[in-house]
Amino acid sequence: MTGPRYTPLTETLPATVPFVGPEAQERAMGHAFRARLGANENVFGPSPRAVEAIRASDADLWMYGDPESHDLRHALADFHGIRPENIVVGEGIDGLLGYLARMLVDQGDAVVTSDGAYPTFNYHVAGFGGVLHKVPYTGDSEDPAALFAKAAEVGAKIVYLANPDNPMGTWRKGADIVKAMDALPEDTLLVLDEAYVEFAPEGTAAEVDIEDPRLIRMRTFSKAYGLAGARVGYALGAEPLITAFNKIRNHFGMNRSAQIGALAALQDQDWLAQTCANVAAARDEIARIAAENGLTALPSATNFVAVDCGGDGAFAKAVLDALVADGIFVRMPFVAPQNRCIRVSAGRPEDLEAFAAALPKALARARG
Amino acid sequence: MTGPRYTPLTETLPATVPFVGPEAQERAMGHAFRARLGANENVFGPSPRAVEAIRASDADLWMYGDPESHDLRHALADFHGIRPENIVVGEGIDGLLGYLARMLVDQGDAVVTSDGAYPTFNYHVAGFGGVLHKVPYTGDSEDPAALFAKAAEVGAKIVYLANPDNPMGTWRKGADIVKAMDALPEDTLLVLDEAYVEFAPEGTAAEVDIEDPRLIRMRTFSKAYGLAGARVGYALGAEPLITAFNKIRNHFGMNRSAQIGALAALQDQDWLAQTCANVAAARDEIARIAAENGLTALPSATNFVAVDCGGDGAFAKAVLDALVADGIFVRMPFVAPQNRCIRVSAGRPEDLEAFAAALPKALARARG
Repeated sequence: MTGPRYTPLTETLPATVPFVGPEAQERAMGHAFRARLGANENVFGPSPRAVEAIRASDADLWMYGDPESHDLRHALADFHGIRPENIVVGEGIDGLLGYLARMLVDQGDAVVTSDGAYPTFNYHVAGFGGVLHKVPYTGDSEDPAALFAKAAEVGAKIVYLANPDNPMGTWRKGADIVKAMDALPEDTLLVLDEAYVEFAPEGTAAEVDIEDPRLIRMRTFSKAYGLAGARVGYALGAEPLITAFNKIRNHFGMNRSAQIGALAALQDQDWLAQTCANVAAARDEIARIAAENGLTALPSATNFVAVDCGGDGAFAKAVLDALVADGIFVRMPFVAPQNRCIRVSAGRPEDLEAFAAALPKALARARG
Repeated sequence: MTGPRYTPLTETLPATVPFVGPEAQERAMGHAFRARLGANENVFGPSPRAVEAIRASDADLWMYGDPESHDLRHALADFHGIRPENIVVGEGIDGLLGYLARMLVDQGDAVVTSDGAYPTFNYHVAGFGGVLHKVPYTGDSEDPAALFAKAAEVGAKIVYLANPDNPMGTWRKGADIVKAMDALPEDTLLVLDEAYVEFAPEGTAAEVDIEDPRLIRMRTFSKAYGLAGARVGYALGAEPLITAFNKIRNHFGMNRSAQIGALAALQDQDWLAQTCANVAAARDEIARIAAENGLTALPSATNFVAVDCGGDGAFAKAVLDALVADGIFVRMPFVAPQNRCIRVSAGRPEDLEAFAAALPKALARARG
């Protein structure tokens, strides 16, 4: 038996995954994490009104969701002051990044990102045979000027920029990114991933002409809205690009209750504001805990904090391993010198108490 | 502004969609359907235990779902008497068909299906540049021997066969399909779509060696389990093929509550049996209504019935249009001669009463 004939590209792809889930780690350890602070989930949870709306719709899950996500798209259009034709809803930003890569990237096509930025973007680009050109962080920030210059140099079809950045939590003013776009080739598409922008200071979101064909912005209900498990993301962009998603997307791919829950979450901006306040307090607490242990927390405009462990990547990894073994789920940047840090998601007081108790022991263990 | 550079393939793809949702029809009509009998949804709904499990997990939607769908895959493995390594869970069969097409289909590759079979499969194949070779139905049934002969003739990478069939509701014995596979080239993959198999008589599901590299079977929680809106499908196949999905799938694409709900649904086989009984009764009632109007209902092993309207495709379309205008959501086959039928999903007594009241009027309207 020879078996199925994969495409030559598929044959070359590794079976690696962007991230191992905490559940797999828990199964390997044989016990659950005491604090789940590794995946930048929003432990403060979704709006109770969203949960209520989801629960009210669960008995109707015998129906497929609306393939056009009409109600959610229209509400988002009102919210952003644009037209529904400028919005595509998808199965999280991850799903939308996959569709986008498929639409633009052929084998050998150049794509630019920062070295150490979001691995799932890289996964999708590589999955379509794209060639990734990686630009170093400047300090601990992604560098729009360097990214766009590299895009021009290699003739990139796509350049990826997260603002605020993941995994470092740093951010740029939206206006500075828009200004840097002057150097962006007109046939390079900037994917501006604003997954964490609701946590960021005023002025972080890019204010752009929605019909600018050089830009697509990614937003999500997974972070500030607390619905990671629902799988609802959306992209904002020029109508021709947004419409093109309809050529390839899984039209009936959205969970029906999730569509309804996202709409209810959007309509509860008071809860969002409360969440952002809770997250800001948690960031301060993580910084305090870091300082108490002689470590430095990086400023963050997200729902996580990169904590500089004061050594190299191997040391941070040892701290991380010790925390994980002690039941504290955290992650860390992949690339030097950012990998001197561990990345700790904003938690409830009880989560951060567990982290605070575990960190000194983890540091001691890592030190020897 | 030149805008983004799509791949040459993407440029050629139409912006058509496999199906327009009933919600779009309702928005266009300005009123809701009185009976939703067009999408082969299971109006009898999911197990109350599944709904309860989903509701209990909704507040935890701040967490991503397990990217490995570990618990569900293991339960499915027990249920089917195979190993978890032979099962991949995905965002409905539609999502899995998309991944499968991506893994196997390059531009120009031959793929075989029946003329008039599931359009979403065709959508995914065309979306990766595959060339579809279509085999006519024999009578109102897909014809395994003809499909496999065509696959051999054109060197197909994939041949698609739904058993039971959609849109006609006809079925083959699983053993007959397995026997017909003797003529299947060893490097052609048979996609056996068993989405409706729970409704079918004993012996319809194909009994095969799970490690046979020529076969992948598709199953879903959307039909008999009543969770279409949850988006949970799975594929059964040889471990190398199943593992290959990990190269490209959206690992964090599953809704967390849906994973939990599907597991609970699987564990309530009593509800499944009751649903199948309800569906069988509804099929009988649809046949009775058809006969009452001088029409012929085709035998069905699914949760829908193809009703032969006794004329050509244009006549059936006129009947369908009249039903839709009267608030009865139904669909119909796309291709002659199957398009002499309308397709009516199993409904509750009140749904079928509405259908029964609307059908004579629709026929009268179509006739003149």
